[in-house]
Amino acid sequence: MARVVVDVMLKPEILDPQGEAVVNALPRLGVAGVSGVRIGKRIELEFSDDLDEATVLERANEAADKLLANPVIETYTLRVETPHAVNAESA
Amino acid sequence: MARVVVDVMLKPEILDPQGEAVVNALPRLGVAGVSGVRIGKRIELEFSDDLDEATVLERANEAADKLLANPVIETYTLRVETPHAVNAESA
Repeated sequence: MARVVVDVMLKPEILDPQGEAVVNALPRLGVAGVSGVRIGKRIELEFSDDLDEATVLERANEAADKLLANPVIETYTLRVETPHAVNAESA
Repeated sequence: MARVVVDVMLKPEILDPQGEAVVNALPRLGVAGVSGVRIGKRIELEFSDDLDEATVLERANEAADKLLANPVIETYTLRVETPHAVNAESA
């Protein structure tokens, strides 16, 4: 099964209040040294096996454009990922 | 500036209604072949320059444990990332 990961982040010039809240909370929880936090979305799309990589990337791009990201305030990046590689600590 | 990316995803056994909604919406938008979608969080933590990589990873792990992820329903992975590598299409 082909998997594409779409990372959707707010553009740098867009304020991220959720990230700000995390920056402010971390010192109170005993975690020092964090100077900035940005919070976005990680979307994993699973495609049918019969599609080649170029098709999969093209469709993922279409999905991101049409539904997953708001181009006014967000940017996105795509990458094809081997299933379960994310959780492989030794990889 | 050291940057750690924390990916927080729902555990596989936890239902993801937002992902289900995306799976159902994509064919109506003309994007075929997507068999599953999982939506999680991508959190970018920026650390001060004076910290080494081991310290940065340890603190990011602590932040994820204490604040960023709910261990009952979510798993997370950490990785150190070169700033702006994410947006470098040619990388």
